[in-house]
Amino acid sequence: MDVARANRTAVERMMSARPMLRTVATAGEVIPGMHDRLLLHAGPPIEWERMSGPLRGAVIGAVLFEGWAEDEEEAARLAESGEVEFAPCHHHGAVGPMAGVISPSMAVYVVENVTHGNRSFSTLNEGYGKVLRYGAYSSEVLDRLRWLNDVMAPVLREALSDSEGLDIRALLAEALHMGDEGHNRNKAGSLLLLKLLAPLVARVAPDPKVAAAVLGFIGENALSVLNPVMAACKAMADAAHGVEGSTIVTAMARNGTDFGIRVSGIGDRWFTAPAGTPKGLYFSGFSSADANPDIGDSTITETAGIGGFAMAAAPAIVAFVSGVPSDATNATLEMYEITVAEHEHFTIPALDFRGTPTGIDIRAVVELGITPRINTGIAHREAGIGQVGAGLVRPPAEIFEEALLAFAENRGI
Amino acid sequence: MDVARANRTAVERMMSARPMLRTVATAGEVIPGMHDRLLLHAGPPIEWERMSGPLRGAVIGAVLFEGWAEDEEEAARLAESGEVEFAPCHHHGAVGPMAGVISPSMAVYVVENVTHGNRSFSTLNEGYGKVLRYGAYSSEVLDRLRWLNDVMAPVLREALSDSEGLDIRALLAEALHMGDEGHNRNKAGSLLLLKLLAPLVARVAPDPKVAAAVLGFIGENALSVLNPVMAACKAMADAAHGVEGSTIVTAMARNGTDFGIRVSGIGDRWFTAPAGTPKGLYFSGFSSADANPDIGDSTITETAGIGGFAMAAAPAIVAFVSGVPSDATNATLEMYEITVAEHEHFTIPALDFRGTPTGIDIRAVVELGITPRINTGIAHREAGIGQVGAGLVRPPAEIFEEALLAFAENRGI
Repeated sequence: MDVARANRTAVERMMSARPMLRTVATAGEVIPGMHDRLLLHAGPPIEWERMSGPLRGAVIGAVLFEGWAEDEEEAARLAESGEVEFAPCHHHGAVGPMAGVISPSMAVYVVENVTHGNRSFSTLNEGYGKVLRYGAYSSEVLDRLRWLNDVMAPVLREALSDSEGLDIRALLAEALHMGDEGHNRNKAGSLLLLKLLAPLVARVAPDPKVAAAVLGFIGENALSVLNPVMAACKAMADAAHGVEGSTIVTAMARNGTDFGIRVSGIGDRWFTAPAGTPKGLYFSGFSSADANPDIGDSTITETAGIGGFAMAAAPAIVAFVSGVPSDATNATLEMYEITVAEHEHFTIPALDFRGTPTGIDIRAVVELGITPRINTGIAHREAGIGQVGAGLVRPPAEIFEEALLAFAENRGI
Repeated sequence: MDVARANRTAVERMMSARPMLRTVATAGEVIPGMHDRLLLHAGPPIEWERMSGPLRGAVIGAVLFEGWAEDEEEAARLAESGEVEFAPCHHHGAVGPMAGVISPSMAVYVVENVTHGNRSFSTLNEGYGKVLRYGAYSSEVLDRLRWLNDVMAPVLREALSDSEGLDIRALLAEALHMGDEGHNRNKAGSLLLLKLLAPLVARVAPDPKVAAAVLGFIGENALSVLNPVMAACKAMADAAHGVEGSTIVTAMARNGTDFGIRVSGIGDRWFTAPAGTPKGLYFSGFSSADANPDIGDSTITETAGIGGFAMAAAPAIVAFVSGVPSDATNATLEMYEITVAEHEHFTIPALDFRGTPTGIDIRAVVELGITPRINTGIAHREAGIGQVGAGLVRPPAEIFEEALLAFAENRGI
């Protein structure tokens, strides 16, 4: 098959995927291959020795959450001992923001692409401040995780059982008309999620206080929808994976040390290089000296044609990631250069309802020397601290070159 | 006082007004001067004989809702008889979208400008389809009004009693960063209202089904926030009224027959002329031949610096009112020509966070020949039908000329 046709097939599969949020369940019950001593993490494969501070912090927190250790030191020893297995979320149909750690007992959203039948998973978003995904693991962090698991998750599960599932692609399409880009800015999407859930939650919650607490948490957290959106993007990207002859990127992910990509027509191989450090705006008291290299699976949003690629839809985001509104527009315009399609469902009003740039072609990235634009949060480089800012970053160019070389070799060129 | 200084005072009062949604109450209890046989309506004063179809329809519906008549014919005879008194909402601190009819038993939002102490009122938004504000009065319409009054209003009243009041200025500021302009597009604002109300409603509703019904109604109605927003704009505009020597417009309103304005430094006099007919997009099966002339108090939004004046914040609105996104930007840019300030709280990300054009100066309108831009819904010209489209309109130029003449006469110029 010629490459252009293969890419058309891949991107059409990506755009026709229709991810529905079906339920909330326990990771160990629903994630294929999840087992008792397995921790999933963001990005390409990595072992404890090479893990950055925030990923180590999240691992420690997950070990404590599971009750595998009594304290931080014991948790770190266990993680180092080899008795805990590590694997990328991406190897198990899952994605996680920032450190992206998923442990067997954690509640996860279950998203199903009803067009092609594949499923994907992500945890419940923890909100702001000291949170596991940024490498914090204090008792406050663990208490919130327990509340999410023991209080919110059962209510959401019951609420979703009363629905046909929530159409996350439709939700995203609407959010892009309301100033979101779907990665770092999810204010509108989170409120659209609240709108869909509020009557269901009010009906099924065990008592009015729990209903109020759950609706308050979802409504106040402008990232509530990020995790289901990431799972939806994973479901869309996975639908485009494995098309023979296609040079479309189907995963971009960072573990805090390495940035990795996968390509539709090159199987499950990762192409990796050291992750860069985002440039952006820092919270009061922090500076770029505190920043960890780029981390998280949230680049699945850019992979699916939103996030940094849809910044023109979200001019207000520059107050958060730096720059002026025309930078946001230019980011999107540049991404049309390295993508093969304009999204059929995701459109940008300010660009006369043009579809978002979708389907990154590694050939175009290499040929033009333009790497993808990514919006991202910035984690402190030490374990146990948390978020220090938000900004913009690009993947290392060499991984696209290596992928293209491998693609050519596979095809005997 | 010189006019420029007076205008600065007026617009600063308008911008520093901080309207808080305090409670929901019965019109007869809280609206000053409301009495047993009084119906308030949108726009400047008008009697039954000159009322257009949709206003007559809404009057008939309100008479039936109050139980003053048994059927449509009896209601029309009563309205014609002189036994029902009519007065503009604006004469009683109130505002109403489209026909804007408020009867003594109807539940109303109570908004208080905590900076200057004045209060304002508006009904609960009925949603879409056959609704009183567009002149429909079938049993479906009256049943919904009864549900709003008997079920939703008590819950909202109880919910708001648990809060300090909802800051509608802050809500609007955020909604303008989420693709709303606050008049015809209130998707984000309505979800922000839902966010604030959801935990309160879940806590106080008499049972889970009522909580679910109320949250479902607010969430599904993308105009839920329009009425509290209009009351908030009324509270802001009233704060700017009565500044001696000021040529700032403090009310623009239409009753479906006449378009009227009031000016800060000219007291309570209305300057009126026949209302124009909006140009826009029609629902399937309708055309401009079905359109009633411009109607409603919702132009209080443009008076306060949002709505048509903030269209650059809402490029997606053109799918609803006609045009392309650059028209929306140009609408806002043009309005800077006839206003005296850029809003301190309402900013537009796409215009580098420039404040919205605020404080219409009748001198500039006359001198430049640029009349205000208005976004609006379009009502069928016959009673009993409803909305047929949405579009754009401008007030008649002569009312600004007459107002300026009166202003000059008052000052002995």
